[in-house]
Amino acid sequence: MKSHDSLSGISRRGLVSGLALLPALSSLSLSAIAQTQTAQDASLGSWNEGPAKQAIIDFVRSATDQTSSTFVPQEQRIATFDQDGTLWVEHPIYSQVVYCLDRVPHVVEQDPKLKDVEPFKTVLSENREAIAKLSLHDLEKILSATLTGMSVDDFEGEVKKWLVSANDARWKRPYTDLIYQPMLEVMQYLRGNGFKTYIVTGGGQDFVRVYSERVYGIPPEQIVGTVGGTKFGYRKDGTPFLTKEPKLLLNDDNAGKPEGIHLMIGRRPRAAFGNSDGDREMLEYAGAGDGARLMMLILHDDAQREYAYGPAEGLPETKVGAFSQALYDEAKKNNWAVVSMKKDWKRIFAFGDTG
Amino acid sequence: MKSHDSLSGISRRGLVSGLALLPALSSLSLSAIAQTQTAQDASLGSWNEGPAKQAIIDFVRSATDQTSSTFVPQEQRIATFDQDGTLWVEHPIYSQVVYCLDRVPHVVEQDPKLKDVEPFKTVLSENREAIAKLSLHDLEKILSATLTGMSVDDFEGEVKKWLVSANDARWKRPYTDLIYQPMLEVMQYLRGNGFKTYIVTGGGQDFVRVYSERVYGIPPEQIVGTVGGTKFGYRKDGTPFLTKEPKLLLNDDNAGKPEGIHLMIGRRPRAAFGNSDGDREMLEYAGAGDGARLMMLILHDDAQREYAYGPAEGLPETKVGAFSQALYDEAKKNNWAVVSMKKDWKRIFAFGDTG
Repeated sequence: MKSHDSLSGISRRGLVSGLALLPALSSLSLSAIAQTQTAQDASLGSWNEGPAKQAIIDFVRSATDQTSSTFVPQEQRIATFDQDGTLWVEHPIYSQVVYCLDRVPHVVEQDPKLKDVEPFKTVLSENREAIAKLSLHDLEKILSATLTGMSVDDFEGEVKKWLVSANDARWKRPYTDLIYQPMLEVMQYLRGNGFKTYIVTGGGQDFVRVYSERVYGIPPEQIVGTVGGTKFGYRKDGTPFLTKEPKLLLNDDNAGKPEGIHLMIGRRPRAAFGNSDGDREMLEYAGAGDGARLMMLILHDDAQREYAYGPAEGLPETKVGAFSQALYDEAKKNNWAVVSMKKDWKRIFAFGDTG
Repeated sequence: MKSHDSLSGISRRGLVSGLALLPALSSLSLSAIAQTQTAQDASLGSWNEGPAKQAIIDFVRSATDQTSSTFVPQEQRIATFDQDGTLWVEHPIYSQVVYCLDRVPHVVEQDPKLKDVEPFKTVLSENREAIAKLSLHDLEKILSATLTGMSVDDFEGEVKKWLVSANDARWKRPYTDLIYQPMLEVMQYLRGNGFKTYIVTGGGQDFVRVYSERVYGIPPEQIVGTVGGTKFGYRKDGTPFLTKEPKLLLNDDNAGKPEGIHLMIGRRPRAAFGNSDGDREMLEYAGAGDGARLMMLILHDDAQREYAYGPAEGLPETKVGAFSQALYDEAKKNNWAVVSMKKDWKRIFAFGDTG
């Protein structure tokens, strides 16, 4: 009895006292353990069996098998995800652009003379056809007027407010509901296996940071995006604050993606996920090296449950998130995995669309 | 017996099977637990008892006490450290500048016409007095020629080679030996309590990344520094690579430090450590907010064991790492902690200097 008591005492007390020594880490460790168990039990549940799902599982196995030459040390387990069209819906228009258009009345209220100045005049007209025809140059004016010139705290507050009030026109739901459930599962599965997950987006770094932790479980410091400078200054009461400046530091698209990855992470990713020509260089960069690697492209081929665009099966190449024939050919040549949303995904959204 | 068996069986088997489910995380979790226990047992061993050590301990307690209004959620536990003069020796000259000067012969070898062009001619002369008199503009030319124009991989390789071959003139040791042991203990103590530690340095981001993980336990993605752009391109065989460009994105000093923190982290730090006027804005930024916060300045006042410079006790203000009277006054006014290297540190380096 004595020996049993002490035996059970050691293991239980050892565990309990170990946790007591972890005032802060305990919650981290326990949630990590819980998350891993979930990942192992229920991971990739929204994926149909097939080569895409298998490619993900094979990659994780080869990266985590210590006996294999493809083993990736924990600190090198970096996975990067494009956002628009890879993690959430990008059609018919990027959500961040909707935010910027929605903010135009406020900008004009602050500076009433803009009311008669293009492109603000057109946006205020609410003439959808005219708005859709705005040039890239006009769009840049709108982005600059709505994304810069305020404090980083004010910007965060405005985006937060918008996210709970704005709805996508087709699904009548907040944009942050339009996250692809299968991709959330991939991120959780990777994190459960020691990977750090990053978003690498052509969208605004500060915009995505507002909801990334809540929606993707990815903290602000792991968002790499198109980013402008800020300017440090003091309020009248002496409090320091940062103002968002219209000075572009990085256009995080195409070649800007590997450049942004080097700027913000400083390591080459082991896995990269994209869905358009803007992700090509990121996938090439991730693919250039030894050991376990996974390059994956999401093909939008499900007009019924989401949208269909891109070259497979004769789909048209569209302007937003173009997935060109050239990218498709490069993917095939380099053995990158191509995910068919129609065939590989059991469901697309968490709110249910199993049909 | 039966009930004991199953009782001890549950806790032990529960633990074992839980760990078995953690192919990759187990090493992370266990090392985190081990690290925390070490931190609790042996932390801050190189610090003398006194208000500086007490300020650190009080801060960690108030940040991790869940019952307190000063409690800081895990994801907000960000601590930022200046490097030169805060984590390692900066006198009589920044180590990175020594690297750049040491690289000049190589640059001239690649481009022989520079042999007769200033400032390269002066550096090649090895005339210390003349080199010390080079202007800031000359220095910038040397930094640009030695820090840009090569691939990020080649740069990393060169810095690695230099770090094992170059020695500090006074201690006859590699520069990475000249890390302040008490500050390593602060970083470990903070990490053991759930903090993410970042370096926020006026030095080059890519330079510090080469040794930060080995020397400080801080991964490359947690280095915020002065940083230039890179350019994505392809080698003749089609392999993609990044070239370091002479285009400055961020001068991570003074106001650039909070700007760099926002760029790279996107959260306001809860603790910030510096030693010079270049760290003033970072400390102000960290200090502007509610809850537990720690702002700390290292005062170099130990000419015998390291160097003495700065305003306390009539020390002269010097050019490198100036700690001005104005900063000293601001620290006193805002109740920032000021560390006396002479009084607060039992030893300065790991290689032993207890005298």
